[in-house]
Amino acid sequence: MRYCSECGAPVTTRVPAGDNLPRQVCERCNTIHYVNPKIVTGCVLTHENRLLLCRRAIEPRRGYWTVPAGFLECHESMADGAAREAWEEALATVELEALFAVINVLHMGQVHVMYRGTLVGGRHAPGPESLETMLVGIDEIPWHDLAFPSVRFTLERFCEDLRFGSFGLHETSFDAGP
Amino acid sequence: MRYCSECGAPVTTRVPAGDNLPRQVCERCNTIHYVNPKIVTGCVLTHENRLLLCRRAIEPRRGYWTVPAGFLECHESMADGAAREAWEEALATVELEALFAVINVLHMGQVHVMYRGTLVGGRHAPGPESLETMLVGIDEIPWHDLAFPSVRFTLERFCEDLRFGSFGLHETSFDAGP
Repeated sequence: MRYCSECGAPVTTRVPAGDNLPRQVCERCNTIHYVNPKIVTGCVLTHENRLLLCRRAIEPRRGYWTVPAGFLECHESMADGAAREAWEEALATVELEALFAVINVLHMGQVHVMYRGTLVGGRHAPGPESLETMLVGIDEIPWHDLAFPSVRFTLERFCEDLRFGSFGLHETSFDAGP
Repeated sequence: MRYCSECGAPVTTRVPAGDNLPRQVCERCNTIHYVNPKIVTGCVLTHENRLLLCRRAIEPRRGYWTVPAGFLECHESMADGAAREAWEEALATVELEALFAVINVLHMGQVHVMYRGTLVGGRHAPGPESLETMLVGIDEIPWHDLAFPSVRFTLERFCEDLRFGSFGLHETSFDAGP
């Protein structure tokens, strides 16, 4: 941010009175512009013991595999956002069961939340943001071609819980530094 | 938002190519300004079967009771943010145990996440954003003077789970309309 989104004046970076972190502040209209983490919401979907994966058609990580996931919009719940992403990326209709993973991606200013659920009817096909979609057994996951560390974390925990026979809620943080 | 935060030109509201929602777009530098929900993170803290509540010293809802909670910052996990808020609002040191509630506050563009944990040593005192802090039994909660619906939801579920003897993860959405 270089200009105040309220009045158009250049902003400065300083710690406002009563605060303890530097913020971007407009010295003309006194607006403080807070920047907060964004939520990425997605889901691990199964059909007859196989998992739905999508190969990304867009950057970042074009050509690599992911579960359906994307930025949460205003006016939708995290679960509704995960279902929307499944439709947009894999033309998949879903029944979500529970929140499964929370990954704080500190260096990106993001929190990734992953639900688990089922793929209704087993039907899927690439949406505009996917090159292809597929259902894979847990022994066929392309571990070396996954798009993001949060996808790896989610799939690792999912496979473990599936073998164990009971699903938990898994929480972690990643920090690749500034 | 009225001005582009990258170049200072006035923004317009329209659906960008390839998108399906209206965004604020700069027609000069072509930046699309996405607005996404913010995370409020907090915690229900117990000490010897009593709960920690804080009476708000700031608007909105000055004078009403809440659990420690506030906006998640970049570069901190949701759990760390909840612990930070407990320190800032109640000078409380905490040991968090698990994520307890997720409340999508649709009309505010917020997701409230609440952890449960214990108040180390039972020590608490008002920080600068609180008028007072107190430990209350579950039969002494000031239900008519709570600050926010998400606090009520969290405390209701917490009391139920405490009576039941087992804690779950509770998820809901509130929508007061546009």
